[in-house]
This record gives sequence, structure tokens and C-alpha cells, in this order.
Amino acid sequence: MAEGSDDIQALVALMARLPGLGPRSARRIVLHLIRKRTGQMTQLAQLLDSVAVNSRECLTCGNITDRDECAICADPARATREICVVQDVADLWALERGQAFKGRYHVLGGTLSALDEIGPDDLGIPSLIDRVTRDDIREVILALNATVDGQTTAHYIADALAGANVTVTGLAQGVPIGGELDYLDDGTISAALRARRRL
Amino acid sequence: MAEGSDDIQALVALMARLPGLGPRSARRIVLHLIRKRTGQMTQLAQLLDSVAVNSRECLTCGNITDRDECAICADPARATREICVVQDVADLWALERGQAFKGRYHVLGGTLSALDEIGPDDLGIPSLIDRVTRDDIREVILALNATVDGQTTAHYIADALAGANVTVTGLAQGVPIGGELDYLDDGTISAALRARRRL
Ligand SMILES: [Zn+2]
Ligand SMILES: [Zn+2]
Repeated sequence: MAEGSDDIQALVALMARLPGLGPRSARRIVLHLIRKRTGQMTQLAQLLDSVAVNSRECLTCGNITDRDECAICADPARATREICVVQDVADLWALERGQAFKGRYHVLGGTLSALDEIGPDDLGIPSLIDRVTRDDIREVILALNATVDGQTTAHYIADALAGANVTVTGLAQGVPIGGELDYLDDGTISAALRARRRL
Repeated sequence: MAEGSDDIQALVALMARLPGLGPRSARRIVLHLIRKRTGQMTQLAQLLDSVAVNSRECLTCGNITDRDECAICADPARATREICVVQDVADLWALERGQAFKGRYHVLGGTLSALDEIGPDDLGIPSLIDRVTRDDIREVILALNATVDGQTTAHYIADALAGANVTVTGLAQGVPIGGELDYLDDGTISAALRARRRL
């Protein structure tokens, strides 16, 4: 056993499976943490435990929160009749960093995909249609990735909402072809949001 | 607050300060973990806590362990009269992965550095000299980085042990100039160890 104890070895193995990490970076991080074991490492363990125990999905929008309703849905200062639809929470975070949108969100949890057999009922699409009708939504902004699946999903939702009294828009210029929102700089996202077009 | 809750935001900030990570990679990892919050995330929290609580330095060699004496020092199958001196535990792990060395280790915890005002007494050098005398060590292998500070430290130790009845060797071919052990592949380290030369 090269790495000190069974727990250290298990910790390195678990860290190495996190996105963007591998065995080498995991070992560096674990050794760094062991050097800071009374401070940073203990704090990290506590925060991970607390977030693991307390995180859940907002019952309204699907955002990650530590309450039944997320801070955005609960914020009376935000516009109630505009919903920005995103693929996942990473995109919601990216839009919030851009600070250009002051309405509510709806997290789909993925995109339609024939290949992966993901249909509308596997995503937050039925609940989106419910919300649009129930809350008298004025505009639905489809902030989906400029990928084939993202755009298929955008068109599906636009079609599904065609009968409702709602304007459906999509992010326009600024999102490069094949680009994923989470990788764009905040300014680009804000520009694309401001220049959104009707679908 | 873009990231769901105060704890999530604190977790992202803490993760972003780990070696090799930044805000973007920290957000990706935290979202990945929240998706796996009942499994991987809870497990990671528990392992971090356990390693933080149980890790300490081997009283003999300075290796990280969860006992008073590390598994290497406690292993009766390993040669007792050969000590491989390394700068830090990352290098010890790298050498163990190479599986070429079957003796004991001594972790210095750094290198001599005039710039950072690190002298022999700040490192495990006095305790190394004690061990060499007390345990009748036959060979001390200085497996230090091929950097200026690493080689200064190697020469200092070789001089300090000149009066003792011990052969002092250093890693030879295979370690590139300016190279750090932790970044070498395992085969290179093994080759350098086998071709070690007397200093
Ligand atoms: Zn919400
Ligand atoms: Zn030891």
C-alpha cells in the first residue's frame, strides 16, 4: 500500500473519479489536505456532509437549494412572469453570474435525446407547461445549449407552448455553434440574453 | 447568491483553493457531487473526516500514517539498514509505486533554502543523523529533486554523514535536470534508483 492507510488510498481513488481529476491530481490534493488536516480538510469534510444532507431540488424550478423553495423562487423582487429554461443547474449558476436575468428559472435536468431514449416526460417539460399556464407566464426564454439536442429540445418546447398565451424566445447571438453555456464567459451569456429572439 | 445556499457557495470557494483547481472546476465538481449526494458525496465527506482525524506522521520516518509507526517502518520484510531520504511524502508515494526500493524512508519535509530561511533544524536532518548512528545504517540513498535546493540539501547531508560509517548515494541517471520526482513516470524513478551513484 503506497498511500499511508486504507482510508487515504480510498480517498485518493474517490477523488480521482471526480470530473477533471485523475490519480495524479487526486494524490496532490489529498497530500495538500493532509498537510492542512486540522483546518481546511476538516472544514471540507463538514461542508460536504452539510451540503450532502441539506441539498434538494426546488419544488418549483428544480434549482439546487437547502429549502423547499429556492432563494430565486422565494425572492419577491424577481419578475414572476418570465421563466428562463435551462438544461441543468450549472447553466442556471452561469446565468446568475451574468446578472442579466431577473425572472425565474426552470431546470429541465437534461435535453431530449433519441440516442439516450430521453423523452419529454423524463425532463421538467410537463411541469414547465403546467407552470406557464398556472402562473400566467408572459415569456419563456429557452437558454439551452447550441448543440443538436439542445436545439431539438428548444423547438419541442416552443411547439408544445404554441397554444399557450406566451412569448417563447431563445438566446441569440453570442452563443457559438456547438458551444456549451457553462464554458462561456459571463459577458457573452449576458449579451446573448439581451439579444434574445422570438422562436 | 448564485450557488444555491451559503454552504454550497462556501464549498465551491474552498474547493477552488485546492491545488490545480479553480472556480470553474470547483463548480463542476460540486455540482457533480450534489447529483451524487447520497452516495459519492457522503462517502467523500466521511473519508475526509476520517483521514483528517486519523492521519499523523510516522514517529520514525515522517511518512503519513494512521498509527504511531507507518506500515513501511513496521514491515519486518523490508531491509532495516537502508534509508531512502525524500523531500516529502509525495516523493515517498512515487518511489513506492516504482516498487524498486525495499528499505526504509526518511521524509525531510522540505529542502534547505537560504531564500526561505529553511535550515537543517527545520527539516528532518538531525533525526536522520540520529537514525543512521543508532540503527547502524549501511546506506543512505538521497532521492531528492534535481533542483538547486534539492542538490544543496543532498550535499549538506552527504557532508554531515561523512564521519559516520555509512555509504551515501544519490539517484543518478533518469532524473532530468530541474525535474521533480513526483512528475516522473514510475519506470524512470525505478531506473534512476537502480543506477544510483556514490556521492
Ligand atoms: Zn426555485
Ligand atoms: Zn515510518
